[in-house]
Amino acid sequence: MAKSKDNETPEKKIEDLGNSIVRDIKKGANPKFTTLARTRSNIIFDHKNGYLRLGSTKEERSFVNVSQSKRFMQTMAVAAKCHKFVKEGLHTTIRGLYYQLKFSLGEDVDENVFSEQSESNPLIEDIEVALSLKREDLNLNANRKGVLAGNMRIIDTFGNEKIEIDCTKQGRSGWAIPSDVDNDIEFVDIKAKYVIVVEKDALWQRLNEDLFWKKENAILITPQGQAARGTRRIIRKLADAGLPIYVFTDSDAWGWYIYWTIKTGSINLAYIGGDVATPEARFLGVTMSDLDKYEFLNKLTIKASEVDLKRAQEMLNYEWIKKHKEWEVELERMIKSRIKLEQDALQGPRLTFVGDYIREKIKNKEYLP
Amino acid sequence: MAKSKDNETPEKKIEDLGNSIVRDIKKGANPKFTTLARTRSNIIFDHKNGYLRLGSTKEERSFVNVSQSKRFMQTMAVAAKCHKFVKEGLHTTIRGLYYQLKFSLGEDVDENVFSEQSESNPLIEDIEVALSLKREDLNLNANRKGVLAGNMRIIDTFGNEKIEIDCTKQGRSGWAIPSDVDNDIEFVDIKAKYVIVVEKDALWQRLNEDLFWKKENAILITPQGQAARGTRRIIRKLADAGLPIYVFTDSDAWGWYIYWTIKTGSINLAYIGGDVATPEARFLGVTMSDLDKYEFLNKLTIKASEVDLKRAQEMLNYEWIKKHKEWEVELERMIKSRIKLEQDALQGPRLTFVGDYIREKIKNKEYLP
Repeated sequence: MAKSKDNETPEKKIEDLGNSIVRDIKKGANPKFTTLARTRSNIIFDHKNGYLRLGSTKEERSFVNVSQSKRFMQTMAVAAKCHKFVKEGLHTTIRGLYYQLKFSLGEDVDENVFSEQSESNPLIEDIEVALSLKREDLNLNANRKGVLAGNMRIIDTFGNEKIEIDCTKQGRSGWAIPSDVDNDIEFVDIKAKYVIVVEKDALWQRLNEDLFWKKENAILITPQGQAARGTRRIIRKLADAGLPIYVFTDSDAWGWYIYWTIKTGSINLAYIGGDVATPEARFLGVTMSDLDKYEFLNKLTIKASEVDLKRAQEMLNYEWIKKHKEWEVELERMIKSRIKLEQDALQGPRLTFVGDYIREKIKNKEYLP
Repeated sequence: MAKSKDNETPEKKIEDLGNSIVRDIKKGANPKFTTLARTRSNIIFDHKNGYLRLGSTKEERSFVNVSQSKRFMQTMAVAAKCHKFVKEGLHTTIRGLYYQLKFSLGEDVDENVFSEQSESNPLIEDIEVALSLKREDLNLNANRKGVLAGNMRIIDTFGNEKIEIDCTKQGRSGWAIPSDVDNDIEFVDIKAKYVIVVEKDALWQRLNEDLFWKKENAILITPQGQAARGTRRIIRKLADAGLPIYVFTDSDAWGWYIYWTIKTGSINLAYIGGDVATPEARFLGVTMSDLDKYEFLNKLTIKASEVDLKRAQEMLNYEWIKKHKEWEVELERMIKSRIKLEQDALQGPRLTFVGDYIREKIKNKEYLP
């Protein structure tokens, strides 16, 4: 059973919410509940801690309010379903939840209480925020993506068994990172010394075949593109365990976006900001300045797209970037030269060069903040 | 080391190709090599065997031919690189190969021998076809996707170790299906009785949590959408091992496409047709006729999109469909009612209903051809 930071189970938290509503009704008071606003104006970049999070603007959902009563009722229905899932010990997705809502609410009331999933999704976030939980704690799995190998073990309590997974014994496949890396799962014997996050699965496979994680005593992760919640969360947890985090992506708009999302979180997950952001992460490459150091890369560049150039220009205006000259130099160089560079290009001279590149960058502390 | 059907290693096959070219040159003959045409007109549906494959139209690539000599030279460069990868025992992707070509050919010749990856990709297929190999045999990994659980073991020879993976002990994650499921990997102790392929990872996770594969003694696979080469290939291999294959998708254009691709292969992989098609596969659901059997589904339908309707109309013209009244009924029903149905909707009454649905369908042999 999951326990949140405040040491209460999700089951108990939902019950407390329900009980407070019932108390209000019995008292003849207007039942309501409070969450934090997830509007743009309440999403702030926390400069001290280095990630996107919600500000303190509260929103109240009240039952006795014509414009809110339907939404209030829907929220209670979502909470009741999640309570059931947690009690049953069964998981589904936000789509599965939506179908359950449609199924059972259609029976008691004439009106179609939920006609689109876009109605139930924000209510889940309301509850996550109001109860200081993540949806995974409510037995709602998110899309999963991402793979891991390295010197650590996982104890996955699954189907009433304690399944032990040795992340040095996953062969060509690696361990597929699940949606929920907090509940009924433990990461033990983390003997690796650092974490390297590789944007592309192709490069992860290349490094895995070279047993890079073994030779370097590292945890080798790929988010397989943009990082899913589970992958962002496990990176956070490994940073909490004291491991330095290095991120290795293409030198283009998409690669930078992947890095910034891992590091500072994202607007749509600002409501669980600190749990899925890793401000300690460093950017290892590839960089535009690699073109000076590795001569051969100059014939392996690609034309930057309009999206790349536009994004680079936008990034130059970020307050955070302005503080870091190294990033300004990178961005300006791309804009001026109109070329970009893929991590795959490091395979040019020989397939095993990719690992040597990473090794040297880390050894020489050649990374960006 | 990989061995193909004709019991020769890829390394030897490439060497034989190279030697024959050298012989031609020494003789003063025009060096050439022969492959099968991959043009639309040479892609045929093999009615006897039930899958898409190439016909017998041959294409000759000749060196002493102004329009072909560059391509001929490029093909030899691709073959030489693959030979090196196989000899080194190292893998990359077609993108990694492209960068190697760009790197080393740029050194010896002035001209940019490869300026786009779209130039090297078809040459890889030429070689696959000419040598009766798959690119995985040439140490070129394709994108991977797909997850598996169930009563079987995998012996993955990886990093000079024999890694043993018990597919009943993969917990919430499952075993991530790699690109290459043929070379240096074995599937042993397949004790499961059938294979169920579930379109969506979300539903796979649902069934995995219910230990469906254990209770039913099945192999539970999700391609995570459209099936990648590795997933198509492992389904083929499990069918070869004598297991019936059931496919479970949404009742919509995309779901049907996923099914047909698993069953009959696809146009772009027609050149390795029989290796990645499983004509024995059966379609379990969801079906439009489920609406009659499961009353509750009627309130969980979705509006069909224009793409769904157009695709359904096209399918009605397929020769194969015309032979199967059951499919005609399905397609016509969607076109007439303009609604579709997702597999997720089966979670409406209770989360565990999904497994009961599959069980009952198989028990009653309610599947489409």
